[in-house]
Amino acid sequence: MYKAKVIVKRKLSILDPQGTAVEKGAVNLGLKNIKHTRIGKFIEFSVDVNSKEEAKNEVEKYCSKLLANPIMEDFEYTLEEVDET
Amino acid sequence: MYKAKVIVKRKLSILDPQGTAVEKGAVNLGLKNIKHTRIGKFIEFSVDVNSKEEAKNEVEKYCSKLLANPIMEDFEYTLEEVDET
Repeated sequence: MYKAKVIVKRKLSILDPQGTAVEKGAVNLGLKNIKHTRIGKFIEFSVDVNSKEEAKNEVEKYCSKLLANPIMEDFEYTLEEVDET
Repeated sequence: MYKAKVIVKRKLSILDPQGTAVEKGAVNLGLKNIKHTRIGKFIEFSVDVNSKEEAKNEVEKYCSKLLANPIMEDFEYTLEEVDET
């Protein structure tokens, strides 16, 4: 069994209005040194297969077909083997 | 200047309906080995201060007052010094 951690970020060329909005909130709280906030997704899940190769395959399909929108977003992931419990 | 990377996750005791929904999509795509999907946020920003202490302060305020809801979510972060550019 493998544990996958995925980070999905908007591509740098794509505006991030949510980040901009949250950052305005920061200024209102008096946090004036916070800049360039960008908000993405962090996804964790387990992949119940025996080889790293299979795990990679499933993770990449999952990311590119469901978790990320490949037109606007990039993804990166880490895979870690864990004991079945 | 520091670069902060924050991960915000729901506490384990809190259900994650978004994760459950996306995982049903995975099953429909034929990815039957994906389990326990949980979706959180990944936030990147810079903190324009000179000491790590100040940076930590700002990041913790930003996280606990805006980025995470401390009732349902936990956050963790890393801080890395970068050259001003």
